[in-house]
Amino acid sequence: MRELRGMPVVKALAEQFRGEVDELAQKGIVPKLAVVRVGEREDDLSYEKGLLKRFAAVEAKAEVTVLPEDCTQEKLEETIGALNADDSVHGILLFRPLPKHLSEEKIKERIAEEKDVDCMGIRNMAHVFAGEKSGYPPCTPQAVIELLDFYGVDLTGKKVTVVGRSLVVGRPLAMLLLGKNATVTICHKRTRNLEEECRRADIIIACAGAARMIRREFVREGQIVVDVGINMVDGKLCGDVDYKAVSEVAEAVTPVPGGIGTVTTSVLLKHTIQSAKRNS
Amino acid sequence: MRELRGMPVVKALAEQFRGEVDELAQKGIVPKLAVVRVGEREDDLSYEKGLLKRFAAVEAKAEVTVLPEDCTQEKLEETIGALNADDSVHGILLFRPLPKHLSEEKIKERIAEEKDVDCMGIRNMAHVFAGEKSGYPPCTPQAVIELLDFYGVDLTGKKVTVVGRSLVVGRPLAMLLLGKNATVTICHKRTRNLEEECRRADIIIACAGAARMIRREFVREGQIVVDVGINMVDGKLCGDVDYKAVSEVAEAVTPVPGGIGTVTTSVLLKHTIQSAKRNS
Repeated sequence: MRELRGMPVVKALAEQFRGEVDELAQKGIVPKLAVVRVGEREDDLSYEKGLLKRFAAVEAKAEVTVLPEDCTQEKLEETIGALNADDSVHGILLFRPLPKHLSEEKIKERIAEEKDVDCMGIRNMAHVFAGEKSGYPPCTPQAVIELLDFYGVDLTGKKVTVVGRSLVVGRPLAMLLLGKNATVTICHKRTRNLEEECRRADIIIACAGAARMIRREFVREGQIVVDVGINMVDGKLCGDVDYKAVSEVAEAVTPVPGGIGTVTTSVLLKHTIQSAKRNS
Repeated sequence: MRELRGMPVVKALAEQFRGEVDELAQKGIVPKLAVVRVGEREDDLSYEKGLLKRFAAVEAKAEVTVLPEDCTQEKLEETIGALNADDSVHGILLFRPLPKHLSEEKIKERIAEEKDVDCMGIRNMAHVFAGEKSGYPPCTPQAVIELLDFYGVDLTGKKVTVVGRSLVVGRPLAMLLLGKNATVTICHKRTRNLEEECRRADIIIACAGAARMIRREFVREGQIVVDVGINMVDGKLCGDVDYKAVSEVAEAVTPVPGGIGTVTTSVLLKHTIQSAKRNS
């Protein structure tokens, strides 16, 4: 069994990004992501730390604006508005979920489309749906594509079973896979005989948000299994795939942690550089 | 073999619409669709004729604005702008394709979202993608759902193979089917072994735009086959399904003409009434 780890993908992408950042530097441009964090959620802080490191490694900028936990909707909108207007900012990331008194629905449409590198807004999502290259797909589904690309998996004509139909992962991922000419089956909790739908695929992508639901009997030899799940069980991180059992059968599996999740901040960096190129 | 004709669906819907139009009439509202036609294309005229008849049958209004073939982009945008501003207009339909000197790309975003009953704009498409009920799905995929509903086909857990991945039919249809809890496989010209993908489905929906491509060997007993194709072969209309051969095997098939195409104007009427209700 091959373990498809995220870190080699991250390193290869960083190599490529360094060249792109250098080219932009010659025009006096430094790609910059504005990170907006409300409060001090532990998840946000941990993601932020990794992100800052990854941007610094290729000499791109990431600047964090921290708003107090009790900040008003107005203040949040002002902050986003100022970042929209700031020409030195190429991408905006707003941590979610927001505290309950703030409206995510309202704020997500306020981020300028060309800086919406995390695909919060409806227009970016529509571009993904339409298969247009002009938008920025959500980072997690795009990380799946980057990882498969890196490991040389040609998706053309392949049967891919996506388990999960969420708006943040399953649906946009299905669209990205179609764009790569895969034959895509979208499964969910109402699917009958999920086991068969998985076994007949060339590639299984688990993004249902249910710990270890893809078991040994769901897979067969020769398959690639991509695990997008992030679940906490007994205080330990695990994916949607029963890694130990599945890895005894499948040809290749992505681990959790250390798989897809590792690649998502690289996608954010990629989008920020793309935005800097497009708007310069 | 059961022939799933469109006309009984149209009649049942009209019955329901009449009640809704009556209710609106008591509030002094008449649902009204503004049809904008540029030039005198034969296809447009024929569709328009059917549409006017269908609206009249339930005492809803459809008013046609005709612009000359050589009209300017500015004039077209003015026309749309005036209809957006007119409170008596609940839906806007613009015939496409437009003459080549006009930009469809620009005009489609000018139609007010709440009057975009034909799902031209990106925001409406994004609602369909997100599975939100607030938008108006494109008429053809919605016509498929209406027809299956009418004939009592419960989609929950059913395996549906969609052949075609276009932005106007295949992709939005896949999303509507997911919303009905079907397990959806999206196939296209790069799919390997399309025959198998079709044979294993409970329901096959052909929307590839290739005359009679779904042949006898693609189907098995017990299947429902929905034909969305409209192709001209030797001056005769035919679908994407080889009707004669397929109907000898499948349990039920929609004919072309007389199937899905017949239902699309009823969907336009449905959306216009919905819009009148929402905005009154």
